[in-house]
Amino acid sequence: MDKIRLGVIGFGCRSYGMTEIFLGFEDVDVLAVCDKYEDRVQNAINKVIEKKGNTPFGTTNYKEILERDDIDAVFIATDWELHIPIAIDAMNAGKAVAMEVGGAYSLQECYDLVDTWERTRVPFMFLENCCYNKEELLATAIAKKGILGKIVHCSGAYGHDLRNEVVHGKENRHYRLRNYLNRNCENYPTHELGPMAKVLGINRGNRMVSLVSVASKSFGMEQYVIDNKDKVDPDLQGVDFAQGDIVQTIITCENGETMLLTLDTSLPRSYNRAFTVRGTKGMYEQFTNSVFLDGNNEYWTGKEFIDNYLNNADKYNDLLPDCWKNITKEQLDAGHGGMDYIELRDFIDRLKAGIPMALDVYDAAAWMCISCLSEESIKNGGKPVEIPDFTKGEYKNRKDVDIILGYHVE
Amino acid sequence: MDKIRLGVIGFGCRSYGMTEIFLGFEDVDVLAVCDKYEDRVQNAINKVIEKKGNTPFGTTNYKEILERDDIDAVFIATDWELHIPIAIDAMNAGKAVAMEVGGAYSLQECYDLVDTWERTRVPFMFLENCCYNKEELLATAIAKKGILGKIVHCSGAYGHDLRNEVVHGKENRHYRLRNYLNRNCENYPTHELGPMAKVLGINRGNRMVSLVSVASKSFGMEQYVIDNKDKVDPDLQGVDFAQGDIVQTIITCENGETMLLTLDTSLPRSYNRAFTVRGTKGMYEQFTNSVFLDGNNEYWTGKEFIDNYLNNADKYNDLLPDCWKNITKEQLDAGHGGMDYIELRDFIDRLKAGIPMALDVYDAAAWMCISCLSEESIKNGGKPVEIPDFTKGEYKNRKDVDIILGYHVE
Repeated sequence: MDKIRLGVIGFGCRSYGMTEIFLGFEDVDVLAVCDKYEDRVQNAINKVIEKKGNTPFGTTNYKEILERDDIDAVFIATDWELHIPIAIDAMNAGKAVAMEVGGAYSLQECYDLVDTWERTRVPFMFLENCCYNKEELLATAIAKKGILGKIVHCSGAYGHDLRNEVVHGKENRHYRLRNYLNRNCENYPTHELGPMAKVLGINRGNRMVSLVSVASKSFGMEQYVIDNKDKVDPDLQGVDFAQGDIVQTIITCENGETMLLTLDTSLPRSYNRAFTVRGTKGMYEQFTNSVFLDGNNEYWTGKEFIDNYLNNADKYNDLLPDCWKNITKEQLDAGHGGMDYIELRDFIDRLKAGIPMALDVYDAAAWMCISCLSEESIKNGGKPVEIPDFTKGEYKNRKDVDIILGYHVE
Repeated sequence: MDKIRLGVIGFGCRSYGMTEIFLGFEDVDVLAVCDKYEDRVQNAINKVIEKKGNTPFGTTNYKEILERDDIDAVFIATDWELHIPIAIDAMNAGKAVAMEVGGAYSLQECYDLVDTWERTRVPFMFLENCCYNKEELLATAIAKKGILGKIVHCSGAYGHDLRNEVVHGKENRHYRLRNYLNRNCENYPTHELGPMAKVLGINRGNRMVSLVSVASKSFGMEQYVIDNKDKVDPDLQGVDFAQGDIVQTIITCENGETMLLTLDTSLPRSYNRAFTVRGTKGMYEQFTNSVFLDGNNEYWTGKEFIDNYLNNADKYNDLLPDCWKNITKEQLDAGHGGMDYIELRDFIDRLKAGIPMALDVYDAAAWMCISCLSEESIKNGGKPVEIPDFTKGEYKNRKDVDIILGYHVE
């Protein structure tokens, strides 16, 4: 395929930015757009016309896109709840899938996703953009080179104050609001878990076997609603939010490694994914972009550490893929500091070349199922819950894959 | 009492430094010293003679100290395993107790400690020095002033690379070695938990109700033994260490707050307690000594945050107690950057004044029991374990206490 004919399903804020990137690709045409709201469909059509000149087909029914012969692939960025059902329908219709992240609502939908792919073998990519981010790629490369020794533990957070987004969910027609009102779980695990899974070889030699998950009560959202009475939907005054402010989930892997995920989205904070990789020879920390190696002097205060280590990981930048070494300002500005551009480029490159996706249906199922399993654990006071192996034992044979086509570290 | 006549029980590395502080106090005489090893007893005697002139009674049997009429109080800094048994014997003998930290080996010994105190009412202080440290005191004061809003979550770590200490445990006769070989738990919870408990009012209006604890495998110690073959006891080659490298424990409080403890002592790292307090109006972070308040701009990289926030918590330094505002270089150098001096001074001041200790037997029991409960949870795959209420319901009535005599924040 020289050109990918794309349909965009779901046209909220996220899709707007991602579609802009697709529209910038010479080898992609956006020929169809869909949202459940008419005004968003019109915005999407206008966006395509403005940027590329063609008038795409627009619809509020995604199935009409899946029926079209002029569509090779779909980008799915709907409400979290619909990601998997639409991906399944798309694969059944023979359309390649690029599916945005989120968490699963049941194990069954994860199994269904895997089954559908195994039956159809339609290209499927899970769009975990943080796996394509500079720091996470650097940490992964440093780990793969053995610089950190045997990897023992990873931790990371989705540390992002979303209170304003959540409380304005009604006017913005945003799915987070109903999720925060009704559900208590690690609702957005993949930004941390994806890069950790890559470092620890999950689904490729290793697997996650169990988790425990514990949530604090929800104090943050309720206080925010009180404090912003004049700006927030009055229906939310005094309402209980089900979603705990801080959710911590500890995952144990088959080989004895552990991973800590922190969902931290409804208290005041500065953004931080806090991706950290710990090995027997050293540690990588994203917050300071630092590598601390065995035998170095320890420091007793944060300031001393910062003075000596901040950004010292840059000395390993040669390990980064060319797309990061040569990144342009335009690409950096395209979304989330460059990772969105690099991720979508990789999807298109692999699709055109007929090469399997780096983040596949097994990764999607394994990473997304953490949400519904954490929900179960939290409901039961932190009870350990088993994590299924969606590869049916094949994880033992599946080889490590390079996350960016043509980029290889060993 | 004008002068406290002190016995020191246990004379390893820790006791050496702490005794030095006691010997610097005008109102303390060290009249007896004990260790199970003769050479350490002699060192202790020499130390007292050198610093203060008197020749203390020396023994390898601590019971001989407890029988003496010229001893008012004992400082206990033995192996972890003996802290509670000796404290119980001391209280039964009517000697006031300052007991060093560590974790408990069974719930029963925690109950016995509490029962003994309730029967004897002998002054007892739990020497959790981090509760007296500048940053933890500052964070606690900021929280008490309401600057962070309702407190929802605290986290902290004992992030201290102890591999060298542990593997040389045989030659240094150090208790950590046998603990790391035979036991897998949050073996040293109180440095983080103590300050968190103060912030959240544990045993004073609030209590801990349950925990889950998960450990990674032990890869760090074993790799260290291999890498340092020529320096390490050959008996340790190829030996399995029971203690996991990273142990994470999530505690849930009665009011819905959560606490995360991380034991992180056998992989390469720089020292970090990472004490963090999260509220509905802001957060305090020890690593950057920063306060981030609601409504401030968030930053998308660690460097941006550091550039804008590092040490901005200093603007609240007026909330610190006078002993920290007026601290001298000598006091700062006396141990762990000043906190040891301030802690021991507070013990002596309260003892002389006949005022209850700020860190009492209920705190000791509640904080130390986390070790044996985490051991149970880890053994059972992270199973939730109930945390007892050692106050028998009295935590509801017990009022907040000022940690330093005469220092009050509200």
